[in-house]
Amino acid sequence: MNHDSFIAEQTVALRQAVGTGTALNALSGGVDSAVVTALAHKALGQQLKTVFVDNALMRAGEPERIVRIFADLGIPVERVDARREFLDALKGVTDPEAKRQAITQTFYKTVFGRIVRESGASCLLHGTILTDIEETVAGIKRQHNILSQLGIDPKEAYGYQVIEPLKTLRKDGVRAVAKRLGLPDEIAYRIPFPGPALAARIVGEVTEERLATVRAATAVVEEELAGCGAFQYLAVLLQDRATGIRDGRREFGQIVVVRCIQSVDAREATATRLPWETLERICARITAIPGVNRCLYDLTPKPPATVEYI
Amino acid sequence: MNHDSFIAEQTVALRQAVGTGTALNALSGGVDSAVVTALAHKALGQQLKTVFVDNALMRAGEPERIVRIFADLGIPVERVDARREFLDALKGVTDPEAKRQAITQTFYKTVFGRIVRESGASCLLHGTILTDIEETVAGIKRQHNILSQLGIDPKEAYGYQVIEPLKTLRKDGVRAVAKRLGLPDEIAYRIPFPGPALAARIVGEVTEERLATVRAATAVVEEELAGCGAFQYLAVLLQDRATGIRDGRREFGQIVVVRCIQSVDAREATATRLPWETLERICARITAIPGVNRCLYDLTPKPPATVEYI
Repeated sequence: MNHDSFIAEQTVALRQAVGTGTALNALSGGVDSAVVTALAHKALGQQLKTVFVDNALMRAGEPERIVRIFADLGIPVERVDARREFLDALKGVTDPEAKRQAITQTFYKTVFGRIVRESGASCLLHGTILTDIEETVAGIKRQHNILSQLGIDPKEAYGYQVIEPLKTLRKDGVRAVAKRLGLPDEIAYRIPFPGPALAARIVGEVTEERLATVRAATAVVEEELAGCGAFQYLAVLLQDRATGIRDGRREFGQIVVVRCIQSVDAREATATRLPWETLERICARITAIPGVNRCLYDLTPKPPATVEYI
Repeated sequence: MNHDSFIAEQTVALRQAVGTGTALNALSGGVDSAVVTALAHKALGQQLKTVFVDNALMRAGEPERIVRIFADLGIPVERVDARREFLDALKGVTDPEAKRQAITQTFYKTVFGRIVRESGASCLLHGTILTDIEETVAGIKRQHNILSQLGIDPKEAYGYQVIEPLKTLRKDGVRAVAKRLGLPDEIAYRIPFPGPALAARIVGEVTEERLATVRAATAVVEEELAGCGAFQYLAVLLQDRATGIRDGRREFGQIVVVRCIQSVDAREATATRLPWETLERICARITAIPGVNRCLYDLTPKPPATVEYI
């Protein structure tokens, strides 16, 4: 069977590449990096070191949940607390490209760079998939986990080789391999989540307060839409504000956008025709978050929109 | 009948107030000022002078359409071109309150002030309705056409009296009186439109280019939703931008919000459960406007949101 042979081939390739050395990978909690972790653990066992970097941009309860899921599978994951470093790097940054850069630089140059130097690893494993490469080539996306885009030659910079075991798969293939590797449905059918995490869901400056707002909105959307069958669903906090009325007085409140899409592989997408009852319940719960007085539903297909806002 | 006696009472009151002098009013095209115009024309005939101020913030074809409708009713309306004055006053202004102020000041102090001084009128007629007064008192709205809020005592400033013939009516009452006065359905059932016109539909700076964008989006929404039975429908151009893909390349595009509400009298409102086919067609047409790559639908009831954004 196709996925079995994919796993067998990648197992051989990983063992060849790593030899008697060790490999390092960062687990984000998304299905891509989870499959890399499970695949590499199967191939390399104790020759694999997996870290989970807490960047302060995670969803509610995320770091604990991910570490526990992998512990249950017998795969050790080391949690690294880098929250302060990311929040400091993001202070005052509003330009979306500069924001992505700040996160990428903090991750690779500061945090992961330190972990790599302190580890004895000879290989870095990345969860890049085919769609990432295609969109990077087309100039649509800056895939944060392709070092060469940063002008970093990993072999020269660190003396390490970078391996991308999933670079021939699309999202549906990754999910199938995840199931084959025994990852729970919670991971295999996990909705995609961007590299910059909740920072990608904030238009304008990323602060602890704004992270708390979009984290609360994200929890509402994920609770209400779990099991709705959509490909991906998310909440975005805009920088614009709008007038409203609270307790009979005028207020100038924050705006949250809800996006929920149908898609096969994230290349094209359409807005899900959700039941109005669901949309109205989401709106009521989101406008109950302190400071938020508008909830909008994104109607736009991809193209011309992307799934994310920044 | 109730509306007949309202018209009869106001006719007597207007004749008493104006005496042998003349009255002046500004017609905006909305149902409130249209009813004031028709009512005062009925009461005062040639003792009424009605002006239509083109402030550059109107919907497509609006000045021509309004003047023609009243000409067909035998009511003369003088069109005043003040587009340059308004655009100059709005240059660089992004704060919503400052924007409203710039429009109000330009209207009252500059343009209407000049018209008042040049006219021989002893009375100004305003289309204030009961809901405007209630919301102004509650601090929810700054009703632009209540001079006292501006610190202007019209009698002292101009030697003129201000009359608000509709101040006991809500929107449904105004519409009924409009029908009774023979105004066409196009006016009587016209969706409400804010005093600052399209400037109230732009978050951030009002420029000719941004006015053209929101004017095009407004035309789409009004075309698609005419006859849908909603109380009001509108398009808002946000200041935030979002990523998108156009012709295979990344673009950073503008965001338009569509709002469509059910309401009896504008005090409370809910988002209309529009058919998805309609929403998707609106989205496709709005994202075809140059520079726009997102279309969002506002789900929020009033309260906690207001109908307008600024």
